[in-house]
Amino acid sequence: MLSDIDICRTTSLSPISEIAQQSGLLDSEFHPQGFHKAKVSLNAVNRLKDNIDGKLVVVTAITPTPLGEGKTVTTIGLSQGLKKLGQSVMACIRQPSMGPIFGVKGGAAGGGYSQVAPMEELNLHLTGDIHAVTAAHNLAAAAIDARIYHEQRQGYEAFETRTGLKALKIDIKNVVWKRVVDHNDRALRMVTVGRNEVNKTINGYEREDGFDISAASELMAILALSKDLKDLRSRIGRIVVAYSLDGEPITTEDLQVAGAMAVSMKETIEPTLMQTLEGVPTLIHAGPFANIAHGNSSIIADSIATKLSRYTITEGGFGSDMGFEKACNIKASATDKKPDCAVIVATLRGLKANSGLYDLKPGMPIPDSIYGNDSNALQAGFENLKWHISNVAKYGVPAVVAINRFPQDSDEELNLLKSWIEALEQDCRVAISEGFAKGGEGTKELAQQVIAACENEANFKPLYTLDQPIESKLMAVCEGGYGAARVTLSYQAQKQLELYEKHGFNHLAVCLAKTPLSITTDGSIKGAPTDFDVVIRELRLCAGAGFIYALCGNVMTMPGLPDKPAFMSLDLDDEGNIIGLS
Amino acid sequence: MLSDIDICRTTSLSPISEIAQQSGLLDSEFHPQGFHKAKVSLNAVNRLKDNIDGKLVVVTAITPTPLGEGKTVTTIGLSQGLKKLGQSVMACIRQPSMGPIFGVKGGAAGGGYSQVAPMEELNLHLTGDIHAVTAAHNLAAAAIDARIYHEQRQGYEAFETRTGLKALKIDIKNVVWKRVVDHNDRALRMVTVGRNEVNKTINGYEREDGFDISAASELMAILALSKDLKDLRSRIGRIVVAYSLDGEPITTEDLQVAGAMAVSMKETIEPTLMQTLEGVPTLIHAGPFANIAHGNSSIIADSIATKLSRYTITEGGFGSDMGFEKACNIKASATDKKPDCAVIVATLRGLKANSGLYDLKPGMPIPDSIYGNDSNALQAGFENLKWHISNVAKYGVPAVVAINRFPQDSDEELNLLKSWIEALEQDCRVAISEGFAKGGEGTKELAQQVIAACENEANFKPLYTLDQPIESKLMAVCEGGYGAARVTLSYQAQKQLELYEKHGFNHLAVCLAKTPLSITTDGSIKGAPTDFDVVIRELRLCAGAGFIYALCGNVMTMPGLPDKPAFMSLDLDDEGNIIGLS
Repeated sequence: MLSDIDICRTTSLSPISEIAQQSGLLDSEFHPQGFHKAKVSLNAVNRLKDNIDGKLVVVTAITPTPLGEGKTVTTIGLSQGLKKLGQSVMACIRQPSMGPIFGVKGGAAGGGYSQVAPMEELNLHLTGDIHAVTAAHNLAAAAIDARIYHEQRQGYEAFETRTGLKALKIDIKNVVWKRVVDHNDRALRMVTVGRNEVNKTINGYEREDGFDISAASELMAILALSKDLKDLRSRIGRIVVAYSLDGEPITTEDLQVAGAMAVSMKETIEPTLMQTLEGVPTLIHAGPFANIAHGNSSIIADSIATKLSRYTITEGGFGSDMGFEKACNIKASATDKKPDCAVIVATLRGLKANSGLYDLKPGMPIPDSIYGNDSNALQAGFENLKWHISNVAKYGVPAVVAINRFPQDSDEELNLLKSWIEALEQDCRVAISEGFAKGGEGTKELAQQVIAACENEANFKPLYTLDQPIESKLMAVCEGGYGAARVTLSYQAQKQLELYEKHGFNHLAVCLAKTPLSITTDGSIKGAPTDFDVVIRELRLCAGAGFIYALCGNVMTMPGLPDKPAFMSLDLDDEGNIIGLS
Repeated sequence: MLSDIDICRTTSLSPISEIAQQSGLLDSEFHPQGFHKAKVSLNAVNRLKDNIDGKLVVVTAITPTPLGEGKTVTTIGLSQGLKKLGQSVMACIRQPSMGPIFGVKGGAAGGGYSQVAPMEELNLHLTGDIHAVTAAHNLAAAAIDARIYHEQRQGYEAFETRTGLKALKIDIKNVVWKRVVDHNDRALRMVTVGRNEVNKTINGYEREDGFDISAASELMAILALSKDLKDLRSRIGRIVVAYSLDGEPITTEDLQVAGAMAVSMKETIEPTLMQTLEGVPTLIHAGPFANIAHGNSSIIADSIATKLSRYTITEGGFGSDMGFEKACNIKASATDKKPDCAVIVATLRGLKANSGLYDLKPGMPIPDSIYGNDSNALQAGFENLKWHISNVAKYGVPAVVAINRFPQDSDEELNLLKSWIEALEQDCRVAISEGFAKGGEGTKELAQQVIAACENEANFKPLYTLDQPIESKLMAVCEGGYGAARVTLSYQAQKQLELYEKHGFNHLAVCLAKTPLSITTDGSIKGAPTDFDVVIRELRLCAGAGFIYALCGNVMTMPGLPDKPAFMSLDLDDEGNIIGLS
């Protein structure tokens, strides 16, 4: 079989204006950016506001191996399968971060015959939205340090007299807004900024700081959760970036930088339209990770797609304990649109990995042995799939299991797994999906199952409502969702909880930041564990995004590069074509 | 008179495809990015390679006030004047950094009726080139720290065995590649990266580092000096990022990251086409500052424009001691194309400021008194203009003084200044330029003088040739150019010079990084000083760009934000339009 990039290059693509017109957009509602990308205006939603929304299908997965189980392949493949069946369909995916592309994971455009194309345009820069988020984020960081510098250097009173501004008296030890870059750069996790030559303050006042990856920026979450530009602007203004010496929260509005941040992010509000290899219109918008952020495609992209098409296929990052949980508890609380169907991607490889009989580590290759027949491991790992099926059922959303076929898989094991699923008591559909090898032809069965699952009205219910106390919302996710025996907060987290409650942030959702490699907070525990604890190490307030992060276990908000990073194989050939991207 | 942004919004612009076609580009040679921007392919240069090049006019200036003397206004105005006279003309300018836009200076699109439009698209993100430069730069930084981390953590031998790569043994105290952001962020000038909790190394190995503004990145200089994508790729591979424990230079090629950096910068190779308010096609490309970098529009943009048009108007940053010097000594040594004419922008305000009789400081408003009649100050400051006229003459390039009129200026003083210039022995043309208030109508006289000046062949000669020793090249610029009495190198600079000579970097050009507010390296010394010293504090090798930076005086490679930054007035109005940008 050809490599992803070769399949992509040998497929003839339509001009993006044709794709836009076919999807029902007026010429005034999209702006081509080169041949293969277009920004899409939100005017389309207003124009079509009286139309009935199409069905929103969220693709999720079992607990994945570090390399993923092909969720984007299935998302793109399914959309192509629905098109083959003559349905009107759009896909919505997140913009890939460049960190993983240069680090371990490679591109995030799907793969094989189920890709968004051209994959190099999707994977690198796209239309610049992540860069604009990064720029707006770091503008606020520069504004904080500049304010500290001028207030301390001039003295509070002199500062007020000279500038006519109120001194904010920022507590240099209580700045909670870090900086971001869109790279895997472990050396930036903990830094000291404002260092000077001895006895000088020309570079500011030294303090401990750190960088997160841009996908973990609150602004990325805000972009994904905003309804429109006005909502974006007002959410940005609610961000708490620091506390004063008196312990009062200081917002971007207090710094008078919220407007400039919104200006910098103005163009990001429009999703980018591309196409799959089989011409399905695909919206790419925002890029929050699902381990350290809420991990779902944007509300705006979904709202455009559901107005324009009968089926919208979108994905929530990692397993159903991660992105799908957040789709239901965070994203759905910020919009009227609820999931109509969940597709759970399972693979033989991934289920065997969940048996605990194989030793898989991030950054290490998958052992070949996992692709051989091993019904014991498959059966042990099947517990994990059952867990995810019942997890989806907790939200009242009908589920379809997509068994994503890898080239090495045997018909025998695939059919065995399928028969187990069909024999479950739980009401759940199943199909073998061959999007990677066959494109839409390979996902027609899956598409039919999804159509059937969508025929009934979903009976959607989240695990909590926003009016519950924060601790009860954490329990709802960890105990009600993950099935943990109990949740405990570290001393630091407990203090933070009290602070947030004191300042009236009780009404926010909760966003669990944990490893995606286990249902628990320990990535080495596979399968469907019970009787485990969730320890919340630290809380972080995201008043603009509308949730409180709960950091569990060793989850890092800044990845590192491995010893042989993916960037080593990337280059340009003599004709200027990109080589080595996968 | 209307504000810049209101003038811009009330002017009707042509679709960029019409502008591209009118400028002589084939449809296959440009890719629209929205309505008002297009990326331009280098294929146009190949197609037209047998055409005679048009004239290259470099706009420079007297020693400016901190607010600038209207060089971009004059560049855009002159191009519009030439169009009014029926000439075929294009303008080439640099992409504005967002640092100054959010900091002090505001936008960099020109002003009044001589603007590149839409100014908000030019000033914010444009087509993402600066972001791509930033991303490629910081990828190399992450690669360095990741390599240090893995080699030190595993041990050199174990690293080699495990990865099959050669251990680079990077000297943690001799990493010369900093990180960059496109912000004015003084707290990032000196940082410690790789900090850890006590006795851990999980975040890497602690070392002192710093951030420059992206405009000071060697990659920005490389982009501006490259002839094509192949040249860009090979220049990137020559960058020296660190030294080994044995003192050997380590390049991006050694890190195997040069290819990925080129991939990240692939799209930046194409200049962005926009238009002036009067429809002159304008190429925007690369953005090196002229104080801390070489400060000129790109070789690629110039080569496209000179193939397509009879006149190409470009600018070199700040006064003729800064950008113009670098246009002649750095840029011209990397291309066949030499300046045919220099336009020296002078203002009554700027000349009076050069009298030393007014106290102007960066970040402070210009006192109103400077706009009143004051022929003493004007006469004293005139010495500065005479200096710049003779400076341009050193390069054998014909000069035209453009007296850029401000609304407050009196006819009396303008005509007085004009008469002084006409009375000079030095062969020099002059015109009053009213591009700001009147657009091309206000620059017709200037355009006629430029046409006349271009009629004779320039007798171009740089101040040095690349085969001279580095120290002799530094003397050529400082003594031969600035007129300094002598150049001295600090101990650190002397050691660096020896190191570069040892490793065979003698053949590189030199790039003086100094204040633009004086011909000397002390911004408070105005006028046309003589008998001053230049002390070179530090050298920095840019083997990929092809020059060695010489840092003089207090020049900072990372600006800071003032106490009332420009970002405070920026916001979106209820319709989502940007307000407060100027």
